[in-house]
Amino acid sequence: MTEYTRGVPVAELKPRIQAFQALLHKRGVDAAIIVQKSDFFYLTGTNQQGWLYVPREGQPLLMIFKEFVRAKAESALERIVDLVSPKKIPGVLETLGYPKPKILGMELDVLPTNLFFQYRSIFDTARIVDISIDIRMLRAVKSPYEIAMIRRAAALSDKLAARVPELLEPGKTEITLAGELEAYARSLGHQGLVKMRLWGSELFYGHLLSGPSGGVPSYLASPTGGSGTSPATGQGAGHRRLGRNEPILVDYVFALDGYLSDHARIFSIGKLPDDMLKAHNAMLEVQDVAKCRGIPGIQAGELYEIMVAAAADRGYAANFMGVGDRRIRFTGHGIGLELDEFPFIAKGQTLILEPNMVIAMEPKVVLPGRGVVGIENSLVVTPSGLESLSSIQEDVVVV
Amino acid sequence: MTEYTRGVPVAELKPRIQAFQALLHKRGVDAAIIVQKSDFFYLTGTNQQGWLYVPREGQPLLMIFKEFVRAKAESALERIVDLVSPKKIPGVLETLGYPKPKILGMELDVLPTNLFFQYRSIFDTARIVDISIDIRMLRAVKSPYEIAMIRRAAALSDKLAARVPELLEPGKTEITLAGELEAYARSLGHQGLVKMRLWGSELFYGHLLSGPSGGVPSYLASPTGGSGTSPATGQGAGHRRLGRNEPILVDYVFALDGYLSDHARIFSIGKLPDDMLKAHNAMLEVQDVAKCRGIPGIQAGELYEIMVAAAADRGYAANFMGVGDRRIRFTGHGIGLELDEFPFIAKGQTLILEPNMVIAMEPKVVLPGRGVVGIENSLVVTPSGLESLSSIQEDVVVV
Repeated sequence: MTEYTRGVPVAELKPRIQAFQALLHKRGVDAAIIVQKSDFFYLTGTNQQGWLYVPREGQPLLMIFKEFVRAKAESALERIVDLVSPKKIPGVLETLGYPKPKILGMELDVLPTNLFFQYRSIFDTARIVDISIDIRMLRAVKSPYEIAMIRRAAALSDKLAARVPELLEPGKTEITLAGELEAYARSLGHQGLVKMRLWGSELFYGHLLSGPSGGVPSYLASPTGGSGTSPATGQGAGHRRLGRNEPILVDYVFALDGYLSDHARIFSIGKLPDDMLKAHNAMLEVQDVAKCRGIPGIQAGELYEIMVAAAADRGYAANFMGVGDRRIRFTGHGIGLELDEFPFIAKGQTLILEPNMVIAMEPKVVLPGRGVVGIENSLVVTPSGLESLSSIQEDVVVV
Repeated sequence: MTEYTRGVPVAELKPRIQAFQALLHKRGVDAAIIVQKSDFFYLTGTNQQGWLYVPREGQPLLMIFKEFVRAKAESALERIVDLVSPKKIPGVLETLGYPKPKILGMELDVLPTNLFFQYRSIFDTARIVDISIDIRMLRAVKSPYEIAMIRRAAALSDKLAARVPELLEPGKTEITLAGELEAYARSLGHQGLVKMRLWGSELFYGHLLSGPSGGVPSYLASPTGGSGTSPATGQGAGHRRLGRNEPILVDYVFALDGYLSDHARIFSIGKLPDDMLKAHNAMLEVQDVAKCRGIPGIQAGELYEIMVAAAADRGYAANFMGVGDRRIRFTGHGIGLELDEFPFIAKGQTLILEPNMVIAMEPKVVLPGRGVVGIENSLVVTPSGLESLSSIQEDVVVV
């Protein structure tokens, strides 16, 4: 027999379900059907395929299409049934005595349109409303268990960064170096997949960019882009060969047992020009400002403006977080099971920081034609500010 | 200045647009807006972010949110404009003299619901219809250029498989071996990301599974699953250590400059038990049957039944393509820019095979508790049957 393990401990799962039910209550939603993979894992502890029905009150019902035996072993939920099609959901709910929902929540930020219309005809007496904001808000504040999981991932981010200097060689291509680091990450348990919620977003480990590649912009909502191996990917490591005296960005996500740590350090073969070192150090100072000011109660948009002002004060108004019209308007993003969680430390965001949110903060200076410098760490919101989950040195590492 | 390259040659792009316009005409659709990333790349040659407007007749209009300069260099389309928001699309269309669409096609199989309602309010005088089937049908038949691209990827799949024996060692974990192979793939130009269209599907390179791992089922629509590194991924290589005399499946996708090759070979450290070798050879015979019978004009569902019957004839009715109720009901899938393209060689599929479709055919026998054997190649439909794009040996490789 195959041995399966629990994805999320029962003591962790129960309060998540209760908190979600409280949000449904507050919103006046009778029940929710959860199908998006990260929300589903968060509330069930399994990544198998099915439908989680969460009524405002009482037991949630996990219905599994594939693979039932596995899901039953992986999930600590009590009520789990085998189900062949979403069309059967109303019948199962009735049999098990669940009242018919009048207002049904679904994740309309990601649910494909054709599926929405299918669910609307299955639940033809209900009104379907978007509960994606609610569940994203719930997921934004991490439990001690989750912080410990991210801390484990961050420790491996540090370990990965510590390996970089041994692998640097002038003339090696970005993609070859990327593969070597990725192999090491895998040997440390990296799950491979880095999940993003936003439709059309995608990332393969992160950005490993040398010299001018660090200044190549892309479609991604990120201060860096990179050439990628072709226009079909259009981001990330490409075929460029590492040179001397240029910044080499290793901005990689460590994905361990579901949880992510986002982490960037700058390396160089031979010394960097003084103005780049200066810009890098300015970004460390901007990070320090964010650490002090990122306390519970501050609005995300306010923290963003503080960081923008701190960069401008140091002379980097024109190159902070990219260059030009479509430069990104954020300095950090929540992180957990996905790379693009709440809160976004972004222009105009009114969301208020709470203790135990985890934020990947990434102040960077982009110098077109020359490269990128700066830092990224995953940090937890504490009463006294942001605490980094990483401990490896933050200066430019010269080999 | 950053040097960008064309993603798709102009001689390739023009007939694609024309063929798509002919489909719109046939369907009575006035125009389409393409946003899904693979469709977008297919019709523009760039992976940057924006909206492609294709009227039934006349010039398509590419509107770019980010990154405009890059998209302009990468795409061979003539009309490319910079645009900040989808709300501005109707205004731009009017300015440029495009007639107002009454029936507007979009990719409703993947477009998130909230975006659908946004587009519906932007195009408030149009009816939005699903054109996903049309574009998927178009993409199913490959051009000589595309077949050459997949052939290049398949050659590297062969090269990757040739490397496996050198890396096999008893006691090495699946995930460590995976990392070593992935590093080699990257050094050969693998782009990393393997794209799938179906919402909620995901794959990291493919499945590297040893012994019993090959029989661990998962949520994925695939004959194999695997433990993965944790329930959060629930598929692919895990922490199991390679043993002797057990099948080691390397079912990996090579993703090169956008195009994919899907490819599986079986390895073992020491000899495999005779019944497994016999099952493996039976799958090679099933592949031969498929190669002969996979000619233009046959229905995909008919080819599926032929393969199922060929497996049953050889004694594998109960273990072909998985075990139990939720075993998958397909033997192959179209492949190109994405892993799950048309046609699906699946139960009940009425789609008719045409020359130059490319199909990843994967007859496999799953033995719970013991592992998986079988084969996978990417094959092109020719007048005389399916031609494999791979040439490396298909027998079990014993080291």
